[in-house]
Amino acid sequence: MSPLPRVRIISTGTEITQGLYADTNAQELSRRLLDRGFAVTGHCAVPDDREAIREAIHACFGRCELIIATGGIGPTEDDLNRAIFADLWEVGLRRVNRAETMMRDRFQRRGMTMPESNLVQASVPQGSRPLLNFWGTAAGFIMPARGERPLAMVMPGVPAEWRGMFDRYFARVVEPMFPNRQPRCVHTLHVALMPESAVNECVQDLFTADPRVEVGILAKRGRIRLRLAAAMDQQEAIAELAARMRERLPEAAIFAEGPEEATLEQAAVDALRRTKKRVACAESCTGGGIAQRLTNVPGSSEVLEESVVTYSNDAKRRWLDVPADVLETHGAVSGECALAMAEGLLKRTSADATIAVTGIAGPGGATPGKPVGTVWIALADRAGSRKARHCRFTGDRESVREWTENHALEMVRCWALGLPLPRP
Amino acid sequence: MSPLPRVRIISTGTEITQGLYADTNAQELSRRLLDRGFAVTGHCAVPDDREAIREAIHACFGRCELIIATGGIGPTEDDLNRAIFADLWEVGLRRVNRAETMMRDRFQRRGMTMPESNLVQASVPQGSRPLLNFWGTAAGFIMPARGERPLAMVMPGVPAEWRGMFDRYFARVVEPMFPNRQPRCVHTLHVALMPESAVNECVQDLFTADPRVEVGILAKRGRIRLRLAAAMDQQEAIAELAARMRERLPEAAIFAEGPEEATLEQAAVDALRRTKKRVACAESCTGGGIAQRLTNVPGSSEVLEESVVTYSNDAKRRWLDVPADVLETHGAVSGECALAMAEGLLKRTSADATIAVTGIAGPGGATPGKPVGTVWIALADRAGSRKARHCRFTGDRESVREWTENHALEMVRCWALGLPLPRP
Repeated sequence: MSPLPRVRIISTGTEITQGLYADTNAQELSRRLLDRGFAVTGHCAVPDDREAIREAIHACFGRCELIIATGGIGPTEDDLNRAIFADLWEVGLRRVNRAETMMRDRFQRRGMTMPESNLVQASVPQGSRPLLNFWGTAAGFIMPARGERPLAMVMPGVPAEWRGMFDRYFARVVEPMFPNRQPRCVHTLHVALMPESAVNECVQDLFTADPRVEVGILAKRGRIRLRLAAAMDQQEAIAELAARMRERLPEAAIFAEGPEEATLEQAAVDALRRTKKRVACAESCTGGGIAQRLTNVPGSSEVLEESVVTYSNDAKRRWLDVPADVLETHGAVSGECALAMAEGLLKRTSADATIAVTGIAGPGGATPGKPVGTVWIALADRAGSRKARHCRFTGDRESVREWTENHALEMVRCWALGLPLPRP
Repeated sequence: MSPLPRVRIISTGTEITQGLYADTNAQELSRRLLDRGFAVTGHCAVPDDREAIREAIHACFGRCELIIATGGIGPTEDDLNRAIFADLWEVGLRRVNRAETMMRDRFQRRGMTMPESNLVQASVPQGSRPLLNFWGTAAGFIMPARGERPLAMVMPGVPAEWRGMFDRYFARVVEPMFPNRQPRCVHTLHVALMPESAVNECVQDLFTADPRVEVGILAKRGRIRLRLAAAMDQQEAIAELAARMRERLPEAAIFAEGPEEATLEQAAVDALRRTKKRVACAESCTGGGIAQRLTNVPGSSEVLEESVVTYSNDAKRRWLDVPADVLETHGAVSGECALAMAEGLLKRTSADATIAVTGIAGPGGATPGKPVGTVWIALADRAGSRKARHCRFTGDRESVREWTENHALEMVRCWALGLPLPRP
């Protein structure tokens, strides 16, 4: 049994149990609760049905110290959480004046008259602490712990609304009631382009090397996260273990470190900005995906000169001056063509380097000796360096494209930082 | 109480309760079960913890007719579902010879020796029906209903593995045991670029017009799904209601109809292929996103001639011959610049039409009179048509970019089909 306060997350909404949306509220809440030192012992999603909601809440009694519930407190008949919590805590409802005023103001500001049916959203169970909603209409509330009933924080299902409420009230009102929680610090090493098994081989024995640090490994399409978590006062232990892992992994493999989320495009843009370099892209099979990802990073206009998507042979000739004989002799999916694209673009751009990709993303397009997943990536720079990489990616069209983009982004990052370019 | 067989979905995995992944298995399973005539009455996600799993399964007893469980049957100590189900059904485990052979073969094909610890994955509870795993290693199983214990289908958590098992066994083995299920048919109208409130105004009174048809409305970033569901033998009622909705909505607003999933890029590519037209794109603020989305559709090479991402003024001049005085007088974010980009590209491409976008995606870049979200989209074609649209999108960078892409893709589709181009 965990010594940490146990939390259960209840999401109400038929749209979830019908599979129209994934329950990302529960996912996001879990991350926040984990970092704040709680143990999430279960998620539960129920339809807008009185019995189902009642049972889900009741199942928590005596089995956790905190319930976080989202959804089911809107104005329509479907929204039942308010009444069910009141009922299970054996109290009535009361109108919150401030919530009512806020709601009327909100409608007035938009020049609308509030339907009186909306007023129910200004009610909360008696004895609960109201949570004002500055981001929408329905007020949330915190039910007190009583007997085997856990403390319960009840919020709307709209992400912007519960996030606002959580950030405003959780640390101030809920956390002080759980002195035994242990906030954790998390440090993540982001590894690119290595297979999970290769990363495992390098560092697996370190997973249990320090009992104070919990290590997790998460792989997704060419990106692997090594997640080091420990109690807030164990930052040194984490730093030490991270250093040991870094020593074991190839220098260029770690593209970001620290925050839990990191992207290859952010790392590439950071590297280019730091070294004041600019690139241009010529994309065939990725269809603009490299540029799209780079330009998703704010400030990327400083580092991306331009990008050309040349799908057809004709476009490769017209826009990148790829010689006809290269296309005839070697084909569009060849190292020669990739290099010609990169060199052609380098002559037309003022960027410091160009990256070019050409390949077969599938499902069609395979030829003898060039199966779906065959990709060439070339890099050319003003210093005269010319590099071409031959990759064979597996998976569907989307997967081949994403792997190709990842590899190209990593080539750009390593080039900018003067690191050896990654090999497939 | 629903007359349909009730299903609960249990997902096992600490990675879910820690919030590292959303429980998309439960989402996907819900959709399949709904269409096959079951009522999903709850999702539950639990960590790899014996007590938590046991309690989640036990909570289903007497409260549903079917459990679908994924995860928790791998080779490591963490994986507990196999033993817990056996225990709750009061039976032992038995080794399945065929599963063992398949597993050994799998390792042999890869030139590896199977660790004996893996063998546990070839075991299933006695009295259960084994589900062979052709997509991975761990065998699944179906526990029989007994007393208040529901039928339970237990599968691995890896999507490719449970999907394979579900498709192979569910219709054949599980469905025949539920004669009272009512398979549904679903028909979806996909509406683009209209605010949810405007769609509501057009069709809201039809939501309850036919008691045989259940209507749902789902909005996400400029795309709205009107989802019509009914019993399998009520296809005519659905078709009739869909026709009434179509009459109420602007002709160009429905970009796809029928399947539950549809994308604007697929609709645009379909329209271009059907009319044998080709386009080229010049993108500034979307950074290649329009091309990236178009080329995500297999076969798009037939309809996309090329795409140029020109972020800087310099690139707009060099690649698209945008006159310097247009940039000086009106700025890069102007109708004049968007039209000049589209016209410049039209001269250099062999495509039938060009689409150009320029705007301020944020967070930086706003100027007086041109706030973040200001976007111009222009279309030029060989017939001499020139159209520019001025949009003001709200939200963050990603949101502005997606709205811009959506609008541009819809302009392409409507242009190809000879429909009036959408207005913001």
